Amino acid sequence: MEFALSDKAQDYYDRMTAFLEEEILPAEAAYHAELTGGGDWTKWRQPETIERLKVEARKRGLWNMFLPDPEHGAGLSVTEYASIAEVTGRSFIAPEAVNCNAPDTGNMEVLHMFGSEEQKAEWMLPLLEGKIRSGFCMTEPGVASSDATNMAATARIEGNEVVLNGRKWWTTGLGHPNCRILIFMAVTNPEADSHGRHSMVLCPIDAPGVQIERMLTVFNDYDEPFGHGEVSFNDVRLPASNVIAGPGRGFEIAQGRLGPGRIHHCMRSIGAAERALQLLCKRALEREAFGKPLAKLGGNAEKIAEVRMAIEQARLLTMKAAWLIDTHGVRGALSEISQIKVIAPRVMEMAADLAIQVHGGAGVSADFPLTQIYAGARCLRIADGPDEVHRMVVAKHEIKRQLQG
Amino acid sequence: MEFALSDKAQDYYDRMTAFLEEEILPAEAAYHAELTGGGDWTKWRQPETIERLKVEARKRGLWNMFLPDPEHGAGLSVTEYASIAEVTGRSFIAPEAVNCNAPDTGNMEVLHMFGSEEQKAEWMLPLLEGKIRSGFCMTEPGVASSDATNMAATARIEGNEVVLNGRKWWTTGLGHPNCRILIFMAVTNPEADSHGRHSMVLCPIDAPGVQIERMLTVFNDYDEPFGHGEVSFNDVRLPASNVIAGPGRGFEIAQGRLGPGRIHHCMRSIGAAERALQLLCKRALEREAFGKPLAKLGGNAEKIAEVRMAIEQARLLTMKAAWLIDTHGVRGALSEISQIKVIAPRVMEMAADLAIQVHGGAGVSADFPLTQIYAGARCLRIADGPDEVHRMVVAKHEIKRQLQG
Amino acid sequence: MEFALSDKAQDYYDRMTAFLEEEILPAEAAYHAELTGGGDWTKWRQPETIERLKVEARKRGLWNMFLPDPEHGAGLSVTEYASIAEVTGRSFIAPEAVNCNAPDTGNMEVLHMFGSEEQKAEWMLPLLEGKIRSGFCMTEPGVASSDATNMAATARIEGNEVVLNGRKWWTTGLGHPNCRILIFMAVTNPEADSHGRHSMVLCPIDAPGVQIERMLTVFNDYDEPFGHGEVSFNDVRLPASNVIAGPGRGFEIAQGRLGPGRIHHCMRSIGAAERALQLLCKRALEREAFGKPLAKLGGNAEKIAEVRMAIEQARLLTMKAAWLIDTHGVRGALSEISQIKVIAPRVMEMAADLAIQVHGGAGVSADFPLTQIYAGARCLRIADGPDEVHRMVVAKHEIKRQLQG
Amino acid sequence: MEFALSDKAQDYYDRMTAFLEEEILPAEAAYHAELTGGGDWTKWRQPETIERLKVEARKRGLWNMFLPDPEHGAGLSVTEYASIAEVTGRSFIAPEAVNCNAPDTGNMEVLHMFGSEEQKAEWMLPLLEGKIRSGFCMTEPGVASSDATNMAATARIEGNEVVLNGRKWWTTGLGHPNCRILIFMAVTNPEADSHGRHSMVLCPIDAPGVQIERMLTVFNDYDEPFGHGEVSFNDVRLPASNVIAGPGRGFEIAQGRLGPGRIHHCMRSIGAAERALQLLCKRALEREAFGKPLAKLGGNAEKIAEVRMAIEQARLLTMKAAWLIDTHGVRGALSEISQIKVIAPRVMEMAADLAIQVHGGAGVSADFPLTQIYAGARCLRIADGPDEVHRMVVAKHEIKRQLQG
Repeated sequence: MEFALSDKAQDYYDRMTAFLEEEILPAEAAYHAELTGGGDWTKWRQPETIERLKVEARKRGLWNMFLPDPEHGAGLSVTEYASIAEVTGRSFIAPEAVNCNAPDTGNMEVLHMFGSEEQKAEWMLPLLEGKIRSGFCMTEPGVASSDATNMAATARIEGNEVVLNGRKWWTTGLGHPNCRILIFMAVTNPEADSHGRHSMVLCPIDAPGVQIERMLTVFNDYDEPFGHGEVSFNDVRLPASNVIAGPGRGFEIAQGRLGPGRIHHCMRSIGAAERALQLLCKRALEREAFGKPLAKLGGNAEKIAEVRMAIEQARLLTMKAAWLIDTHGVRGALSEISQIKVIAPRVMEMAADLAIQVHGGAGVSADFPLTQIYAGARCLRIADGPDEVHRMVVAKHEIKRQLQG
Repeated sequence: MEFALSDKAQDYYDRMTAFLEEEILPAEAAYHAELTGGGDWTKWRQPETIERLKVEARKRGLWNMFLPDPEHGAGLSVTEYASIAEVTGRSFIAPEAVNCNAPDTGNMEVLHMFGSEEQKAEWMLPLLEGKIRSGFCMTEPGVASSDATNMAATARIEGNEVVLNGRKWWTTGLGHPNCRILIFMAVTNPEADSHGRHSMVLCPIDAPGVQIERMLTVFNDYDEPFGHGEVSFNDVRLPASNVIAGPGRGFEIAQGRLGPGRIHHCMRSIGAAERALQLLCKRALEREAFGKPLAKLGGNAEKIAEVRMAIEQARLLTMKAAWLIDTHGVRGALSEISQIKVIAPRVMEMAADLAIQVHGGAGVSADFPLTQIYAGARCLRIADGPDEVHRMVVAKHEIKRQLQG
Repeated sequence: MEFALSDKAQDYYDRMTAFLEEEILPAEAAYHAELTGGGDWTKWRQPETIERLKVEARKRGLWNMFLPDPEHGAGLSVTEYASIAEVTGRSFIAPEAVNCNAPDTGNMEVLHMFGSEEQKAEWMLPLLEGKIRSGFCMTEPGVASSDATNMAATARIEGNEVVLNGRKWWTTGLGHPNCRILIFMAVTNPEADSHGRHSMVLCPIDAPGVQIERMLTVFNDYDEPFGHGEVSFNDVRLPASNVIAGPGRGFEIAQGRLGPGRIHHCMRSIGAAERALQLLCKRALEREAFGKPLAKLGGNAEKIAEVRMAIEQARLLTMKAAWLIDTHGVRGALSEISQIKVIAPRVMEMAADLAIQVHGGAGVSADFPLTQIYAGARCLRIADGPDEVHRMVVAKHEIKRQLQG
Repeated sequence: MEFALSDKAQDYYDRMTAFLEEEILPAEAAYHAELTGGGDWTKWRQPETIERLKVEARKRGLWNMFLPDPEHGAGLSVTEYASIAEVTGRSFIAPEAVNCNAPDTGNMEVLHMFGSEEQKAEWMLPLLEGKIRSGFCMTEPGVASSDATNMAATARIEGNEVVLNGRKWWTTGLGHPNCRILIFMAVTNPEADSHGRHSMVLCPIDAPGVQIERMLTVFNDYDEPFGHGEVSFNDVRLPASNVIAGPGRGFEIAQGRLGPGRIHHCMRSIGAAERALQLLCKRALEREAFGKPLAKLGGNAEKIAEVRMAIEQARLLTMKAAWLIDTHGVRGALSEISQIKVIAPRVMEMAADLAIQVHGGAGVSADFPLTQIYAGARCLRIADGPDEVHRMVVAKHEIKRQLQG
């Protein structure tokens, strides 16, 4: 066993940390000021700050680090990138600054692994350049999407065309002014077995029949300029070549997409938890009541310890899951991937909740990013499969393991 | 022991429930539509809906029920009103509809108990009529307000005048277009002992030197049209007769105000928890995954049971605290009042959290009132003394009790 | 609502508390010394101390208070007796001292409600006198007894006889030297519907075919002299008149037995929790570390508050369940009875666990009754239906309630 | 990062697992039968079974693996041995079978690191041979031993002699028939600073003035034949050469002893948690209620997942703490060592508690080792520093880190 980072990962980690602390964290206030400068109704635009940070990131060689491919990315393994993802999780604007933000990373991965040369040229390269943004359309408003077999949207093949119908929501990034392309998951062949039934289709956002119905709030926040949208597809006709890797391969693509993506999400969650813990400690040392800093009052110190212990454990488990993907593939890491999907958001939520409490009224206000961290964590307990589904996955693996001896 | 409501309380309870179900709940959508009709920036106005409901409430004899005084109120004991407060907690617009909303109730109580005839005529009567709204200025941004001795604002007596200075925040209702009067708590005599140091002063919102600095969000929500504000007092000069009950009685007034007020808050929390549980059950029965309604999947049923058990217990404890106030006075109920202040928001948060989880993405959106319930609960764990302070109060009472044997 | 005890209950409560504090608690050490005086292998005998206390209890008019019947008992309602049961829960030897100990109370109730005159004369009267002890044979080692339909034991009617076969365990009291009679529950007619399938049979412990297989430990404790036994019934032939209330009425009797019995158990649990909290506070005030009494260190005070809040709530819920039985019958209290069955042992366990922690090594030793309280609570989470089953009952009631609106 | 075991650790792990499964687990029943064969009062003897296993262990080269020294031990690093310790934690009799049981391991380490040649020859070698057993005397009954400065026992130097006085308890192994030597920690120079005040002294168990006062139960279990004792030292005079490493070095030795020792304890805890989870799954698959195996009922599967997730995280954190000791020394791992001291027993307790619940009545009986696992975990939350103290250590490190960060 070896718990130190590889030299390469350590180098990226140090440089990413420096970039975060020197440029990104100090830019957060400007970013939010630009976003809200014109009032709430003008938030759906790209702040200049982020474009400036993107230029700086490329200069520093901190760009597309999520992609293991050394040609288009940094050539980091999943394990190596994981620590970088954690650093980016410490600021909500960091992931985009280094072109490593969801859902674009997942979409780029899909195109990189499964896309045709034409698809790559048209969509992957501009995404890798950070020139356009994308969305992923999976969850549906009308059914319990925790059960994938409930999916009702369709992508029928008609001759050389594919015809999309259905309604999706929680499509993150749908509101971004640069959003150009959606990956739409739907049923192509309801007669096929459950793993061969779905397709993923590249659908330009301006295709006829694509209708953005509304943007959704998350704990009252639109998360502009990315946003989360509800979008309907009404007889959207596209060339059949827009189907990624061919009809019926949607499930397979989704599985491949989810492994590393969950590592990223979870490590960003851990970074966010660290941010919350940092704010918590700072406040607990600064504010006094009953003659002592809050850090020394009642059970506060013990709670700080609990957060630290929870973060350490969640990080190690996530790193191990990453290492399993690198060494045994996603299929060899299924239980661990579900485990971290439960654990990492829980730790993030716990850290945010305690930090809010120590901040008092300030904690629930917009003066600190704590409600944003809390809300992010709360959503992650639902998104990409709710906790309950992941616990069932873990239990099934456990029972199988025990039966085998 | 007798767990049934008194006949009088039962009558009010039934009529309030009928009003809620027949008029208030069906009006929620219209209320929110009016509020947001002109876009986010126009929310600071009073929706017509609420004025319509107020008229209806008076017709039904459901008005100012919080006030034990039979002349101005309904003549209900604290215990009797508690059940009514629970019903109003099931809708965020119900308390105002029956003129029983915080912080106006507390302010009316203060005037009723401690106000001069002039003060009553000028401010209490219009408040009882629901014609004006009011704010309460206690918490300060610059210090840990969980320790009351940290209070920095001052109300100096200079001849016939009182001069106010300081900065307050989390003044709920400050943004309401009808808000006319603030009760400002501050230090008058820093040399006095800790119970005789403070005063409460009636300060018209348009007095020279009163400056609304900003409105604060709570989990991104301004809670319009009431809102929570940060407000500075810069050499605000008022007649000394604006000091309620005379200088140095602020602490005494605050104590009297907090007892029944916390019962109200806690019972509304329990009503909100019931609303969340109701929504939870409804959704869990409607939605299916893996071939079953969510209510029958995994641990969901057991969690429903946990919420039910937590609500039942919190309600009984709050009712007992109310009964103690009625029979032994606020001072005979101090431990129990602190207990419910911890327990009721916790139950409300727990119910909201589980309901959010069962709703999936819809749960964190504005399609359901669940994030509002959650955020309300989260704030109550901080407001009026954070959980930590109340647990210390309970522990002190317990240790004293054990020492006495 | 009225949270004070009735005059009659208060009188018994005060007298029971006085007896407990004046006689029972001081006698605990002598009781245990007698029990273990001859070494571990001689514990299966009745200590003189308990017989002395029984005499004193009768003198004080504190005897058979559990029985609502004023002729044989004290004529207390379930609600009134509940508070007395709590007091007896503060010492493990108190219930027997006042002839209100399980399982004899339940067995006496069964005989009182369903027994024939002959059965009453032969078994109920000596039990009421405290001259003999009894056992209740329900749980079986070979199946998951949480599901009553799993019951495998049989009580076949053959002419004028009933023939018992099967194996039971966790028959409390089986080891008591004065144990004379068992109530055996078994299947009489497997074809009948689930509510008419079982019978309860009075089986003398010395009937041919009754074989005590072994006594079971609970966390290494035999709980002598009562004990918990495993017992087999091999073609035990008894007069058919030994069937209580006639064949097929076992389920009905069990239901009637469980309502008040669970109130008793739960209130005793709350009394035990109070005892643990008392010991906890005492120790936390006596011992010092890092220059302070433990009560002021870290989160200890907050935990004391949590225990107090949990106890208050559990007591109120149990009292309400008792009141529901008195006013609406057992069938009107089914959800609440299941609720307290989950909550009360949980509170008892929580109080014991925290008290153990504050006592350090002494807490897990026999120097304090804390592991006994803990183990008692732990068993109650399993006995008479495990928590999981009771949560399902609560959830079913809740869902039905919500569907009815 | 690399989560695989080293080749050497893997080899030992595989062989230890084989020994456990082939020899030790099947011998548990015989061990307990021998122990209890003559009745409870004869348990203080060494079962033949364990001596037979010791012979087999040496044949298999599985002996003294805890000692990093390749001459007397296996030459495994702390990290490498950690996995072996986990395997031994799966059976309560495994550690002694391979001569890796506490407290002998810690005592051997102390002698190995700090002992003189004479001390090694006289005590370390027979311990390494498994011929004698030893005890460690630190905790005292009269004070809160969580605060080391409370220690009252003394080891005064008088000329060539050291004179021991004081009372200790929770000396594990004191009851073992082969126990020959105690390491006694006490104050030598109360004027010295807190790190130079104490000494550790080798005290033969038969030295005049050593009095075993009693053996203590842990949840009613004496844990024979090792046991936990209370022992007084009354003017015990020994040659000054019995002081290990010289007077005043007790604290330094204790620190060195505790680092690897806590790794061992925690990994054995994790092994015990695995055993509990294994039993839990087995029972949950075998028993049926309401027509399904318990594993599929209600929230049971989700709870199995929670145990699995907790174990995985605790193991990784413990392995990292071990790695930190190997790479940065005990002083570089202080926070992590305190973290695992809180986490590992908690996981062990959680697994045992859930397993008990799933086993129903059988779970609290002696038919399964679950109460033993539970009690072991419960004690570890107190022994070697209670959770509260370790959380304070973690919090202090965290706050220091944040202030520097």
